[in-house]
Amino acid sequence: MHTQPHRNPDVLVIGGGIIGLATAWRAAGRGLRTALADPAPARHGAANVAAGMLAAVTELHYGEQDLLALNLASARRYAAFAAELHDATGHHLGYRPCGTLAVALDADDRAHLRELHDFQVRLGLDSQWLQGRECRRLEPMLAPGVRGGLRVDGDHQIDPRRLVTALLTACERAGVVFHRQHAARLTTGRDRATGAVLDDGTTVSSARTVLAAGSRSAALPGLPDEVRPPVRPVKGQVLRLHMPDARHGAFLSRTVRAMVRGSHVYLVPRADGELVIGATTEELGFDTTVTAGGVYELLRDAHALVPGLTELPLAETSAGLRPVTPDNGPLLGPTALPGLHHATGHGRNGVLLTPVTADAMTEALTDGELPPEARPFSARRFDKELIRT
Amino acid sequence: MHTQPHRNPDVLVIGGGIIGLATAWRAAGRGLRTALADPAPARHGAANVAAGMLAAVTELHYGEQDLLALNLASARRYAAFAAELHDATGHHLGYRPCGTLAVALDADDRAHLRELHDFQVRLGLDSQWLQGRECRRLEPMLAPGVRGGLRVDGDHQIDPRRLVTALLTACERAGVVFHRQHAARLTTGRDRATGAVLDDGTTVSSARTVLAAGSRSAALPGLPDEVRPPVRPVKGQVLRLHMPDARHGAFLSRTVRAMVRGSHVYLVPRADGELVIGATTEELGFDTTVTAGGVYELLRDAHALVPGLTELPLAETSAGLRPVTPDNGPLLGPTALPGLHHATGHGRNGVLLTPVTADAMTEALTDGELPPEARPFSARRFDKELIRT
Repeated sequence: MHTQPHRNPDVLVIGGGIIGLATAWRAAGRGLRTALADPAPARHGAANVAAGMLAAVTELHYGEQDLLALNLASARRYAAFAAELHDATGHHLGYRPCGTLAVALDADDRAHLRELHDFQVRLGLDSQWLQGRECRRLEPMLAPGVRGGLRVDGDHQIDPRRLVTALLTACERAGVVFHRQHAARLTTGRDRATGAVLDDGTTVSSARTVLAAGSRSAALPGLPDEVRPPVRPVKGQVLRLHMPDARHGAFLSRTVRAMVRGSHVYLVPRADGELVIGATTEELGFDTTVTAGGVYELLRDAHALVPGLTELPLAETSAGLRPVTPDNGPLLGPTALPGLHHATGHGRNGVLLTPVTADAMTEALTDGELPPEARPFSARRFDKELIRT
Repeated sequence: MHTQPHRNPDVLVIGGGIIGLATAWRAAGRGLRTALADPAPARHGAANVAAGMLAAVTELHYGEQDLLALNLASARRYAAFAAELHDATGHHLGYRPCGTLAVALDADDRAHLRELHDFQVRLGLDSQWLQGRECRRLEPMLAPGVRGGLRVDGDHQIDPRRLVTALLTACERAGVVFHRQHAARLTTGRDRATGAVLDDGTTVSSARTVLAAGSRSAALPGLPDEVRPPVRPVKGQVLRLHMPDARHGAFLSRTVRAMVRGSHVYLVPRADGELVIGATTEELGFDTTVTAGGVYELLRDAHALVPGLTELPLAETSAGLRPVTPDNGPLLGPTALPGLHHATGHGRNGVLLTPVTADAMTEALTDGELPPEARPFSARRFDKELIRT
């Protein structure tokens, strides 16, 4: 038995958001003595705002095929991951294999969506082209003007708030030691990361330290410049409405999304009646203000897509910060500083990438190397650029 | 000295909203032993949602000249009323003699506003016609498309939340006895109102009872049908934004309003930085849900009027119920049931009409008759119609 569990874990995770918690849970499950530092784990991360789309196929972007592969790898693991987490905690996670319908509202949108469909088909993805009336037959609340759409039955959803709360419970049950404080500073010695000093002055010494602080990852004091992750915050505002009781027919039965005036809007209907509408994309630093303009644009675009939502109660408005990297992919695994791992920079895909990230990080923490599917997202891929600047 | 101040007041006011509190304050100031029943006085009334425009002239409607006279009488008393309340409590009320600018966004609006201006001038009201560029010189944040407007320097504002809170303090200092419960039932005996039974079974016997329960006035149990006030709830949704620090120039310096797509929208800028945007008008019974559609329409219309507000934080959304009568005027003073007075039905003018209502009710409670300016709004004016039905 170790005598100072708080002070000398095998792994210290800095950040108790969805990625940090999932990594800590998996690491503890692998037998690593794991500690996590966060003043309020599961409470303030981007997952508390995120809609929870697990949309590897509908979120496909040209030139991001490596990310597609990682997203698909994670999507494939989701049902088992959710089942295991449910078994470990008894929590319901709102995992809903409902599929996604991406629709076009005008001829330009339709042309873009057809191109995306062709690209998906060339990549062998499961995506079905529908006429407008077929879209409306699936989802009768859609605007009459819908011109066509992509039906992707494999793009599901989960409730990120439930997920992150369950991960906290799972970590506690798996023996993760929580330091409910900020990591004040990364500590280094002999050219290695050695852990962190916490806000109250406590030193936590760990063989491996995982930086999982989301959009704030680059700001950790003590972090040497050459391993500072190139992560910036990208603000997203999100609304939460309530749908009427589904006994008289579901308001929406799957995620619906569209491009409206050049902005993506999506509506994610939960089984419990919550309807999440997102999201703005704003480069405003660490600002998380809910603005009149953000709410207006989301309501305007969602109204164009599903006019009948005007009657629904608006229950909540919120804003979060996506941790975004220069190539939109996450930063995973060992860095140039021995002992320091990154698990950050997940951008808009953090919820989707949680299972594959937790697995990849655990492998890196035990074997020292990322598994093959995660290697394109090595935390070291920007090393040269950092040295150049 | 009376031995049972709680049980036998001269006056029992049912309802601790803005009208009930102001009436109780004035009645107590006149030497009447006054009690007030409300589970949470100053907390749940329409004043907690209202914008607080004191807009007798810009709110003028054709065919409502009697109401105009009452509104003007109250507006004239406002500065002194606010000063007296401030002296009695030390509270700041946000009374701001800032004037109002009503603008037109298209040719139709402009024609309507010109007609209103002509009507105002015929009635001898102070209203100045401005060209669009003169409007924008006064308020540079106005949309470039503004075609003209009415400048009414006599239409001011107050912060209704501050006002109602100060009235509660003033009542307490004036010796009003608060029963922090619902009035469960009006009591009657020998063809008179005799007070009320409260939720806990306490009987409060009073020579005069004032029904000031806002939109819920008609629902008081025990109220005989022939004196049930013809008041219905009309829902209004309202937004609260925050303006930037005014040191670098005020975002807006006076109330700005317009008709957009047939709906009135107004922006009321407080000295403390709050910007109130109102209001929807919805006949939906006692529903006070904030809806996606209500918020969307307010933001859309406000954005058409003042495009620069998109950057402002959206701090609060809320909905309240205006107590509206068939002729849009309040119901004041003695009813057909001796001992029962009404002080309800103030519709969209409750905040404006507070001083004149409190004065008129106090006169009716002491002399038995409303003063001349309030007589067109006698609670008895619908008696015949009630008997007919």
